[in-house]
Amino acid sequence: MADTTVYRAGTTAPVNIAVVKLRDANNDKLDRYWGKRDAKLNLPTNSSISVTLSQADLRTLTTASCSTTFTEDSLTLNGELSDISGARTQACFRELRARRAALEASDASLPKLSTMPLKIVSENNFPTAAGLASSAAGFAALVQAIANLYELPDSPSDLSLIARQGSGSACRSLFGGYVAWRMGDKEDGSDSKADLVAEASHWPSMRALILVASAAKKGVSSTSGMQQTVATSGLFKERIERIVPDNMAAMEDAIHNRNFEKFAEVSMRDSNSFHACCADTYPPIFYMNDVSRAAIRAVEAINAKAGKTVAAYTFDAGPNCVIYYLDENKGAVLGAFTETLGSTSGWRGDAGSQSGVLDETVAEILRDGVTRVIMTGVGEGPVKTDEFLIDANGQNTKR
Amino acid sequence: MADTTVYRAGTTAPVNIAVVKLRDANNDKLDRYWGKRDAKLNLPTNSSISVTLSQADLRTLTTASCSTTFTEDSLTLNGELSDISGARTQACFRELRARRAALEASDASLPKLSTMPLKIVSENNFPTAAGLASSAAGFAALVQAIANLYELPDSPSDLSLIARQGSGSACRSLFGGYVAWRMGDKEDGSDSKADLVAEASHWPSMRALILVASAAKKGVSSTSGMQQTVATSGLFKERIERIVPDNMAAMEDAIHNRNFEKFAEVSMRDSNSFHACCADTYPPIFYMNDVSRAAIRAVEAINAKAGKTVAAYTFDAGPNCVIYYLDENKGAVLGAFTETLGSTSGWRGDAGSQSGVLDETVAEILRDGVTRVIMTGVGEGPVKTDEFLIDANGQNTKR
Repeated sequence: MADTTVYRAGTTAPVNIAVVKLRDANNDKLDRYWGKRDAKLNLPTNSSISVTLSQADLRTLTTASCSTTFTEDSLTLNGELSDISGARTQACFRELRARRAALEASDASLPKLSTMPLKIVSENNFPTAAGLASSAAGFAALVQAIANLYELPDSPSDLSLIARQGSGSACRSLFGGYVAWRMGDKEDGSDSKADLVAEASHWPSMRALILVASAAKKGVSSTSGMQQTVATSGLFKERIERIVPDNMAAMEDAIHNRNFEKFAEVSMRDSNSFHACCADTYPPIFYMNDVSRAAIRAVEAINAKAGKTVAAYTFDAGPNCVIYYLDENKGAVLGAFTETLGSTSGWRGDAGSQSGVLDETVAEILRDGVTRVIMTGVGEGPVKTDEFLIDANGQNTKR
Repeated sequence: MADTTVYRAGTTAPVNIAVVKLRDANNDKLDRYWGKRDAKLNLPTNSSISVTLSQADLRTLTTASCSTTFTEDSLTLNGELSDISGARTQACFRELRARRAALEASDASLPKLSTMPLKIVSENNFPTAAGLASSAAGFAALVQAIANLYELPDSPSDLSLIARQGSGSACRSLFGGYVAWRMGDKEDGSDSKADLVAEASHWPSMRALILVASAAKKGVSSTSGMQQTVATSGLFKERIERIVPDNMAAMEDAIHNRNFEKFAEVSMRDSNSFHACCADTYPPIFYMNDVSRAAIRAVEAINAKAGKTVAAYTFDAGPNCVIYYLDENKGAVLGAFTETLGSTSGWRGDAGSQSGVLDETVAEILRDGVTRVIMTGVGEGPVKTDEFLIDANGQNTKR
């Protein structure tokens, strides 16, 4: 009799925010522009380091299932059927199936999952519109969920090789804590993968405050839509050859030694350098806007007031500001924002209020331009779960 | 009998807008930061090229006078007595007096103007609040007016050596048309001066449209007020060593050949690179804001619509956008702005209106954020004038 079982496995996966950054466009034109070694293998221009954020606040939940009763591979993201014909998703499916097929070949008792259509359902616990790096969490969860379904023995670092091909920065979401993606130097990309710099528990007082910029204040689009005429930024080469290697070494050292001032300075400098290179492309790419710049001035004012560096800003491919700080300095950091953002959605400040730290223009721009805040910390990597988005009959459980 | 004559001479001087840019802070801390060879001599980090704008629209009018009846040196700027004790103003006075003294030493019949107190009065025909580079026009006019008063035989290039010590970019306002400031390499700065790339008449159809950003929309201040902790931008070295020399050569070539597309591309790339380096300093310096970025997207849209590069943006140390274009393309350039800026102060568009070139968000940001426009062209260098701001008795004629 044919096997009509619906095999299922689930995982959650976290968002990560780079502190030594990488241009990760997942766009073939831009990939070539940014000089990726091989756009198909999704090899990066430089190594990078990220902080994995707590899944209590930001996570993707994904169920992977397979069954002979399914007619074709499918992927549902936040209730909508997603196009899986792209080379990146196909690469993930193909690599994971090949590993499962190898297991099946060596043990005839295993069900032939590698031959069955896959059905994947995935949900974020945060709005996509928030502009957070949902594709990293999404591809990490997709790869981990299928790896769980296939009972692959691969380590997170091994799986990061696969996730990288889906969405570069996804490879860093296979670990918790502080994670490096080593660019590697092999032509086939087999050494371009993530590894752990330090567990979340290594530095338990690290916190993150995310200022989500209002959609209405997003301003002009980040790119011009004229990318066919692109050419390499004149400054970018200097960044990837000299600045990033220096920042990688300094950042690993700062994390190992729990040196917040150094962690903060490297984060801020690297974010400045990254966005400078984006603005130096032709035509220029702008991710930050006036709200972002007001957030930078706010962090500078907080540090000036504290007389030392207690807060660090960083910006990914969008205007949202991520501010890292240590719990023992929450009075100085959150307190400075209480008057301005205390009534904003997501605010859970219990750190009192410090008047007059922010200049009035800065406060006004933030009050106007920040629609929600996310208060979170550093968290774990993917966690296996029995919370399924697909039932035992292969039907979606929600929506 | 003592000579009680009030000797007078007057000049006008133009504004210039760099198309290959230079950080010209006139701030000793920033000067060291940006690696000037010698802050006292005001030697630049790199060569630069500017376009001199027409004095019909933007000019400084300055009268220099001297008399034994004056009690001390003085300088009145736009009706307000100005502090002249600064090293830069003193350097200009000292250098000019030395040259006059040399003339007097070789010809005893000359009145001893070099020993008399100087009285300078200066007025701009544009609001200082517009954030245009008034210090360049101001110091060029000051030096040229005193040179006229002293009847110095020095060429504009010789005088540019003096003006440079007042305000670096002022040295370029001693010429009309297209002007290079060669950084030179001598320790004493004696070869760091301006020369002519081409007269205004060489390329008579060049026009400039300046979008003046509303003070209310200026956003956060360009610097953080924490400049005591500055250190050099990691990308800046690459800019001054490789990018600027390439842009200098390409720009001179574009001007000599009246190649607008090349002129435009180098202008835009150099502006991007310059502001990228500013944003890469630590703490970052931001001159551009959301209005500036909307202006960039507008220029990109105009060029995309035209199917070729008919407009070029550039930004100095502020959010105002200067758009260069050729008169034969005014329909494509001005026409695209007519719906959005046609009722803005200063608009003199007679080029019709092209609907739908600008995206609605871009148009809205510009409508909201541009308070006035200045429509001008390329113009001449300083012009000697008998319009005096000081009367024959040594009294101010206005205010």
